[in-house]
Amino acid sequence: MNNSQNDPGEFGLIDWMRQREGISRSRWTKLGIGDDCAILQPDRGSDLLVTTDMLMDGRHFRLQQDGPRAVGYKAMGVNLSDIAAMAGVPRAAVVAVALPRAHATELAQGLYAGMHELAGQFEVDLVGGDTNAWDGPLVISVTLFGEATERGAVRRAGAMPGDVILVTGTLGGSLFAGRHLRPEPRVALALAMHQVVPIHAMIDISDGLSSDLGHILAESGGLGAVLDESAIPIHSDAYDMSRKDGMCALDHALNDGEDFELCLVIAARDAARLLADPPAPAVLYRVGVVTERPGLRLRGADGHERPLVSMGFDHFRTVEDPP
Amino acid sequence: MNNSQNDPGEFGLIDWMRQREGISRSRWTKLGIGDDCAILQPDRGSDLLVTTDMLMDGRHFRLQQDGPRAVGYKAMGVNLSDIAAMAGVPRAAVVAVALPRAHATELAQGLYAGMHELAGQFEVDLVGGDTNAWDGPLVISVTLFGEATERGAVRRAGAMPGDVILVTGTLGGSLFAGRHLRPEPRVALALAMHQVVPIHAMIDISDGLSSDLGHILAESGGLGAVLDESAIPIHSDAYDMSRKDGMCALDHALNDGEDFELCLVIAARDAARLLADPPAPAVLYRVGVVTERPGLRLRGADGHERPLVSMGFDHFRTVEDPP
Repeated sequence: MNNSQNDPGEFGLIDWMRQREGISRSRWTKLGIGDDCAILQPDRGSDLLVTTDMLMDGRHFRLQQDGPRAVGYKAMGVNLSDIAAMAGVPRAAVVAVALPRAHATELAQGLYAGMHELAGQFEVDLVGGDTNAWDGPLVISVTLFGEATERGAVRRAGAMPGDVILVTGTLGGSLFAGRHLRPEPRVALALAMHQVVPIHAMIDISDGLSSDLGHILAESGGLGAVLDESAIPIHSDAYDMSRKDGMCALDHALNDGEDFELCLVIAARDAARLLADPPAPAVLYRVGVVTERPGLRLRGADGHERPLVSMGFDHFRTVEDPP
Repeated sequence: MNNSQNDPGEFGLIDWMRQREGISRSRWTKLGIGDDCAILQPDRGSDLLVTTDMLMDGRHFRLQQDGPRAVGYKAMGVNLSDIAAMAGVPRAAVVAVALPRAHATELAQGLYAGMHELAGQFEVDLVGGDTNAWDGPLVISVTLFGEATERGAVRRAGAMPGDVILVTGTLGGSLFAGRHLRPEPRVALALAMHQVVPIHAMIDISDGLSSDLGHILAESGGLGAVLDESAIPIHSDAYDMSRKDGMCALDHALNDGEDFELCLVIAARDAARLLADPPAPAVLYRVGVVTERPGLRLRGADGHERPLVSMGFDHFRTVEDPP
């Protein structure tokens, strides 16, 4: 970790952060920015959650169009979403950046502003980082630390046949109007739900519902699921996208990535309770059930089931490809 | 954190790691690769050390020439060196990569092999990661977690006037023959020294002795130092570099970066003890003393002192620039 730069006239993301992060928001922070390592003091006996996500220009954002602040916001947001998916409490983050040389200072400050916005909202300390300049495109990598609650971290494994599948918001078309840049990490909602009912399994929808639910089913011992076609909550962006590309809105909702809603699996009786009295301001949708029979199926209004091929977010697609 | 890929035929650094990291080396690891977050269980009441370093093609390595295994090795090594600089015990790591699309699988496996070599040696678990492909150059970002011992983490702040400055090896010319790719993290040595004497301040030499010692002096309240010209241990690579570029070998030893030796500051009486009986197989060099008077000075064989301008590693230089 290189927390200082030789030339203070050059980009100073880390120094800049250090000045602004003097007041600690998290009780974990013993030593923040400015040494070879940060020092954290996790609560005694608590489980430490760790997640890392890297965003690259042209892959996860378009710097020219989106601007550095949006990039910093997204970089922090996608990591917060991973902590939410374990029903954890975010505490602290470190950030590493490769800045295009020409606008390094300006970019660093914009990135910081975006990260800071979410860090403040979620009481996360930025405790360290590594700043580099190069001739390549912007790359930012955030690693976030959180804490599991006394009820434990919720994993992908744990779904059981007969369990109900819920999602926390409408899905699809996140690329259409830039919603993929503004994740709203469901940290508070996950914690609230986890207090009320045992969550068997959970994941955040980054690759698309069909893919991410597929991860839960695979990790839970090779189970399957039936999704109700009429119950899939479709975001208005998915309809807009549909009008643009001719693919049906439902498919966008099932397969588009970067919604950053949660997909959770709970016992049927708990689902009934939760849907009857959801933690405010949650909007919860019951989208289907887990089955012993492997594979994903989609049940139409007529009751017929057809196999659902998990398309998911294409990790090789770039945001610069036309949708 | 995206621990799984949709298409197993594509690059599978994370899946590959998951298969190979099934056996945990660290008692901290509760849940490794394969979920939204890793779960670690730090020892009760221990301080958690966190460091992150990002390496980019053309800046910290030349992929074409060095190969992916060397890159993985260096990425893990520079982070281990930061843990060593706090006199900590490394425990676990996460890694995020941006892989050039054309050779993603091959690169991922090479990177992993390099990381694994050091991870095994230092009993570090690779507990998570994020794998991406793009059209840009290779970028790798490792975040490493460690534990401070009961004697506490050693910081940059803490040097006092009259303290003696030691370094753990010869310096300079690390770029000449590729030594910058093979850091030997001084973890065991730092722990052994910290058991024997109180270390007031410590840093790893990544930017060059003059710069990195400068960080210690600045963080310790604006102190200064006098270095003995004849006592600076010069690596044979610095002489080779000198023959090539005409700059004197001493300047290479004082200013080149990426030696990854430790620079430590301890009380004079402790230095005498440590130098008389260094923890095997340490080689320790006494290079100077800390002064109340600010600024770095170099004392020649004739006893005259001259100001030492901290040149340090140029964060804007690339390894592709001719040395």
